[in-house]
Amino acid sequence: MPHLHLEYTANLPQLNADVALIRLNNTLVGSGQFAAEFDIKSRALKVETFKVGTAMNERAFVAVRLALLSGRSPEIKKQLSQSLLAVLQDLCEWPAGVEVQLSVELLDIDRESYNKTAIGV
Amino acid sequence: MPHLHLEYTANLPQLNADVALIRLNNTLVGSGQFAAEFDIKSRALKVETFKVGTAMNERAFVAVRLALLSGRSPEIKKQLSQSLLAVLQDLCEWPAGVEVQLSVELLDIDRESYNKTAIGV
Amino acid sequence: MPHLHLEYTANLPQLNADVALIRLNNTLVGSGQFAAEFDIKSRALKVETFKVGTAMNERAFVAVRLALLSGRSPEIKKQLSQSLLAVLQDLCEWPAGVEVQLSVELLDIDRESYNKTAIGV
Repeated sequence: MPHLHLEYTANLPQLNADVALIRLNNTLVGSGQFAAEFDIKSRALKVETFKVGTAMNERAFVAVRLALLSGRSPEIKKQLSQSLLAVLQDLCEWPAGVEVQLSVELLDIDRESYNKTAIGV
Repeated sequence: MPHLHLEYTANLPQLNADVALIRLNNTLVGSGQFAAEFDIKSRALKVETFKVGTAMNERAFVAVRLALLSGRSPEIKKQLSQSLLAVLQDLCEWPAGVEVQLSVELLDIDRESYNKTAIGV
Repeated sequence: MPHLHLEYTANLPQLNADVALIRLNNTLVGSGQFAAEFDIKSRALKVETFKVGTAMNERAFVAVRLALLSGRSPEIKKQLSQSLLAVLQDLCEWPAGVEVQLSVELLDIDRESYNKTAIGV
């Protein structure tokens, strides 16, 4: 905890996913909401097959899902979401002529049934 | 919002994922539940490594997850789910000798902490 | 139902994802919680782009998400989660010098809007 998933469509070659994850993790650490930076586990997936809506315009999206152990307040969640969206907006020069949607979703992990362990630490 | 994920196992070469997404999106637009077709963000992932159950029979699956902003009634959700399943059933000729499972799951996105923006629109 | 997702970072070449899924499925069948082994649909995804925390140490993770139809007790969920974590711990010799995090998350599928069908069974 937390687990972050970043999805981005393949028609955004300007987007550097490694850099994106570093910035997103830095933002999460900077939020003061997480006891240990080590706990933040983030991954990026380039989406090769996608469709936005039904029109033929060229479209793209970048979607972040952040899963947190349940218990944080709505205000904290809203702040985290907004700060992650701000990171997405600054990730790259967006391509001209492409309609790009950026989104951040937070979801709760059931605390009681979550289990983890670390090896080699 | 909404976000749709389509997963399909790699032993279904008949399945055209691009066509599948177009049909799923058309069905969502046709439901009248979404203000703008532009909002529907769908992606497909071919699953190369999978295991259904424990038997040795050849098996496959196609799984849709549709994430919606919270607030829709159970009846609306059930209808959306059924209409998406109907799309899956018609996607292709299913291979003989393969046990194929199709499923549709709906889940809520926490409305308060969801954030998005659009660029180039 | 159930749906299992296994994610593992690409710096764990010792991990055999096919074997992992077989063991995880066997454990789910052995739990006695599922009427039919056929229902268990599991997939593995190797994560090529990832970042754990903000430090430069070499780090890895293996993350399981198990989605179940809603209605099981917290105790059952906790047991399932622990038994899956035990499988992860035994998956391979973990590489020296890499900090590996293993985690298991359970989440509920909304029962009312879940729809499925099987073909060729």
